[in-house]
Amino acid sequence: MKTKQTRTEGSRYYPKRYDFDPASRDAIFDEGLVCQVAFELDGQPFILPTSYCRSGNTLYLHGSVGSHFFRQMAKGIPVCLNVTLVDGLVLARSVFHHSMNYRSVVAFGKTRLVESDQERWLAAERFVEHIMPGRWSDARRPDESDMKKTMFIAIDIEEASVKFRAHGVVDDPEDLDLPVWAGVLPLRLRADAPVADEAGPELQVPEYVLNRF
Amino acid sequence: MKTKQTRTEGSRYYPKRYDFDPASRDAIFDEGLVCQVAFELDGQPFILPTSYCRSGNTLYLHGSVGSHFFRQMAKGIPVCLNVTLVDGLVLARSVFHHSMNYRSVVAFGKTRLVESDQERWLAAERFVEHIMPGRWSDARRPDESDMKKTMFIAIDIEEASVKFRAHGVVDDPEDLDLPVWAGVLPLRLRADAPVADEAGPELQVPEYVLNRF
Repeated sequence: MKTKQTRTEGSRYYPKRYDFDPASRDAIFDEGLVCQVAFELDGQPFILPTSYCRSGNTLYLHGSVGSHFFRQMAKGIPVCLNVTLVDGLVLARSVFHHSMNYRSVVAFGKTRLVESDQERWLAAERFVEHIMPGRWSDARRPDESDMKKTMFIAIDIEEASVKFRAHGVVDDPEDLDLPVWAGVLPLRLRADAPVADEAGPELQVPEYVLNRF
Repeated sequence: MKTKQTRTEGSRYYPKRYDFDPASRDAIFDEGLVCQVAFELDGQPFILPTSYCRSGNTLYLHGSVGSHFFRQMAKGIPVCLNVTLVDGLVLARSVFHHSMNYRSVVAFGKTRLVESDQERWLAAERFVEHIMPGRWSDARRPDESDMKKTMFIAIDIEEASVKFRAHGVVDDPEDLDLPVWAGVLPLRLRADAPVADEAGPELQVPEYVLNRF
């Protein structure tokens, strides 16, 4: 696996904003819920926002066997995949120095149709455990019919780079005394109270749901 | 402006999940903080995650005049742009029916370097007011030197489509009595307490910051 940044934007501009440690990359993949997958069809770039999961150096996507985009990906095409987590708004005294704190990973690879049953089941379990750890051993597992309707696409990461900003306000010295509040407004994805489905028996909300966020 | 969905995935699979009302599209653009822009360079798809703003049918990006990607976009290239908002996790009784509630817009257009001063200043103001309404009239506005360092790229939307999921659990009837909790865990981006920058005088946090999320 190459993690050096050769296909992403020139690090000479913001060298301190890049991080080539594979652990940083994996931490972002494991925290995100949705990724963006970009590919080109007939000269037109497309983005597919979709859920995903990771196992080692491989990312998995899943979709309906009837999906046009998934059928294209099953052929094996070059893709770029992004996960971006927004961590805060940076409000400087001057408009020009406003910024955002974030963590973002851009990965490159080729799509591959997952064909072996073993890898398909691995991907199915990883998907559920990525979104909601603990759910795989609680929910009714897929049966043969469920699995037949589902296509799994793997992307073995060839190259990836992490870009981030994780610091406070940087203003020009001559602006520091302006009567303008400056600081960081931290942001994160949080859960409201779970809303039970009323179609079945009344059951306690599992701890793993309550503690997920 | 065409808002019919001809370049995005076949609506025949989930017809109810598409929404072609321009107001829905604009509401997602106006709520999101980060977009993904995809384009192709030398046969390789790239994604640039970046902040953006909207004015009417035009989206604006901004970056350093030295940025490699922004210099490519200044030439006028076809792009696909996505904003995805995650609204919740849908936990069904069966793994197969797990899903996510979300709102997502995919837009297509060509990049255009913003050259007129009037449009550059409009974009600058929109950017700030998109991220933090009220900030433009509070912070120190850009001066000529700030503006010289900034490139604005416009994307006049040629085509856009909204896809969403906004409903509860859908399980197979035979799974309804399983002893598995099912429901929706609503998610949203929320702010923690603002963290003031200590480099300048101590000032009250503005109402528009406290009420932003």
